[in-house]
Amino acid sequence: MHSTTTPLSPTDRTRVNRGKKRARTDRSDLYDVLDAGLVCHLGVVVDGAPMVVPTAYGRIGDTLYLHGSTGARSLRAGGEVCVTVTLVDGLVLARSVFHHSMNYRSAMVYGQVRRVDDPAEREAGLTAIVDHAVPGQWAYARRPSTKELAATIVLALSLEEASVKARSGAPVDDDADYDLPVWAGVVPVAQVRQDVEPDPRLAEGITVPAHIRAAAGAELGAELSPVPPAAR
Amino acid sequence: MHSTTTPLSPTDRTRVNRGKKRARTDRSDLYDVLDAGLVCHLGVVVDGAPMVVPTAYGRIGDTLYLHGSTGARSLRAGGEVCVTVTLVDGLVLARSVFHHSMNYRSAMVYGQVRRVDDPAEREAGLTAIVDHAVPGQWAYARRPSTKELAATIVLALSLEEASVKARSGAPVDDDADYDLPVWAGVVPVAQVRQDVEPDPRLAEGITVPAHIRAAAGAELGAELSPVPPAAR
Repeated sequence: MHSTTTPLSPTDRTRVNRGKKRARTDRSDLYDVLDAGLVCHLGVVVDGAPMVVPTAYGRIGDTLYLHGSTGARSLRAGGEVCVTVTLVDGLVLARSVFHHSMNYRSAMVYGQVRRVDDPAEREAGLTAIVDHAVPGQWAYARRPSTKELAATIVLALSLEEASVKARSGAPVDDDADYDLPVWAGVVPVAQVRQDVEPDPRLAEGITVPAHIRAAAGAELGAELSPVPPAAR
Repeated sequence: MHSTTTPLSPTDRTRVNRGKKRARTDRSDLYDVLDAGLVCHLGVVVDGAPMVVPTAYGRIGDTLYLHGSTGARSLRAGGEVCVTVTLVDGLVLARSVFHHSMNYRSAMVYGQVRRVDDPAEREAGLTAIVDHAVPGQWAYARRPSTKELAATIVLALSLEEASVKARSGAPVDDDADYDLPVWAGVVPVAQVRQDVEPDPRLAEGITVPAHIRAAAGAELGAELSPVPPAAR
């Protein structure tokens, strides 16, 4: 496993060409973005054309785990993939429309997916996916049966070839535009979790366990909390 | 332009094969998802491999507009694209890990991008992109100069070939699992806008205009509001 202070070593396609100042070069930045996201966008090539599918994921060290049904078109394709995770942090309203932007954090991972067949790694990968959003959930809920496991593909993607871009802070306008009588600033955007909604079919007497309470938002009516990165 | 009650006509690749019950078939569902999102994930094929890039967008009728720098690798590639917009609405915690899921709305659009050269359509497309998140902003901020316009590529993508999937509501467990002493329900997730953060370099006396106030969240400390779909 890489130390988190290992720099991301760019390849031709992960070298940030546009907006170089937005490139993050530390491996810990990659982990931060991946751990804070809830879904990734998995890009594959099917019959020569791109296909981009939102899907859940989990991370163990320098491996990203994805899962899916044995019938899914996007997973059957195989070969090279690009997985992108994007967090929108704000709308950047500049004095000129040209300098309008967004504050965001985004990670792109390229590579060949590996189909996981080893039972222990399959279980570890699925645990990482289920626990990504709600740590402790795998240990709490009913584990998969042999039949359920057989219907599930687990895929692994190395984080070796990856890039991270981020923008934060105020708009940056052309010097001359700072004199314009135009309001400029940021509208912050956050993905928040609200209070739990129990299943209407929940049996009486089953209370919300502490690990789910911890992963949900504050009580209804209170201020919402941003989505915390999954604990690792 | 299609009426919003026109059904989405599936092609081979937009026909929902996995999770058919999650397929939405009305064109208005497509508009709703596209209008509620803030960024799309643009998938292209570069040197035979997929590349997925988050980017802003706007919509006019049955055309999606994207923009970018003349130097961007993802826009130089040309050819077929897949644009996906995903909104995460909740974490679905079932009694069994196998039935864990997410509540979400997701739109996928396939097609050949068309580079927009007509000046009037270029301006309309850029206006749609800038006004997507904050309606009224194009008319308010400084318009692009000839030089700024020349540095900007505007791309159009028809919404002809598209699919929409969505899941909402409580978890669905196997009948036998409803007797388990396991809490089940949903942790709602929302993308919210918070109160504006003025640019530290903002000149004195410039107040937040009404159209920006309307697109931002409530006052600090108050409950946050979900991101409203762009007004159209």
